Amino acid sequence: MTTIQDNLLDWLRDAHAMEQQAENMLSSQVERLEHYPQLRARIQQHLEETHQQRAQLETCLRRLGSSPSTLKDLSAKIMAFGQGMAGMVMSDEVVKGAMSGYVFENMEIASYTVLIEAAKVAGDAETQRVCESILQQEVAMSDWLRAHLPELTQAFLTRSAAPGVEAKR
Amino acid sequence: MTTIQDNLLDWLRDAHAMEQQAENMLSSQVERLEHYPQLRARIQQHLEETHQQRAQLETCLRRLGSSPSTLKDLSAKIMAFGQGMAGMVMSDEVVKGAMSGYVFENMEIASYTVLIEAAKVAGDAETQRVCESILQQEVAMSDWLRAHLPELTQAFLTRSAAPGVEAKR
Repeated sequence: MTTIQDNLLDWLRDAHAMEQQAENMLSSQVERLEHYPQLRARIQQHLEETHQQRAQLETCLRRLGSSPSTLKDLSAKIMAFGQGMAGMVMSDEVVKGAMSGYVFENMEIASYTVLIEAAKVAGDAETQRVCESILQQEVAMSDWLRAHLPELTQAFLTRSAAPGVEAKR
Repeated sequence: MTTIQDNLLDWLRDAHAMEQQAENMLSSQVERLEHYPQLRARIQQHLEETHQQRAQLETCLRRLGSSPSTLKDLSAKIMAFGQGMAGMVMSDEVVKGAMSGYVFENMEIASYTVLIEAAKVAGDAETQRVCESILQQEVAMSDWLRAHLPELTQAFLTRSAAPGVEAKR
């Protein structure tokens, strides 16, 4: 038996750890990207949003008398995922990186969808409002990545097939 | 320097390994789910689609003179992800399971979006057609999961807060 409040707090802590990992992953992508300036600029923008999201979640946790945890089950999994992606040295790095970014955004979308409902059930209007506003940013980033994946694939394939041209980042 | 055809084949092999992992994850979820019959039925339906998707990808690979590989970089990562999810014993298993299913669907959506573009660039109309038809099924499953996540969260929270009622699966 677990109270609604306890589940809400657990999920808020998961989301906080997830945004920390998002910061790592996005920073590493911004640093590495060289030949795909449009993608780099969009990731840079989302990195700034992500800093703010983490701060907003921290405020929610403190308001509820809690604080961010350092490690939980899901966080450990997310970290493994993010680190795998951050350390990518594959020949198709830019494509896999954009795919991973899209997948990560959708992990965030699922998390905030659950959190919004939990906040509603708990009657916590402020947490609901924060999560709804973060969700919009995640959906925008996810939509952007999916919409640009075909042209990014095409650009990668063209560079990749050209002699003496670096394609992967 | 990598030809378009080589990239296309690599990505088709990745997709095949991904569908194999999807089969493992979905089977394990169908077996474990007990108190959420609607979710279970939808996963069962998608498991059957997934069997066919894997067979279709195998046909594409053989037509192109290749075959499924057993392990690649991405496949190893996907497996770690899927196995983590398959072996989940968390108290909020049903919610995390639906979230993971949604995330996995979006990994598949990203993969087929890339594959469709690669098939176009390679002038491979048959691979393009197969991937477009699989993509539709993945999008339908992803949409279903996202749409049902709030009511699933609510059902979980209600069961979870009730004494003597199992909530997690």
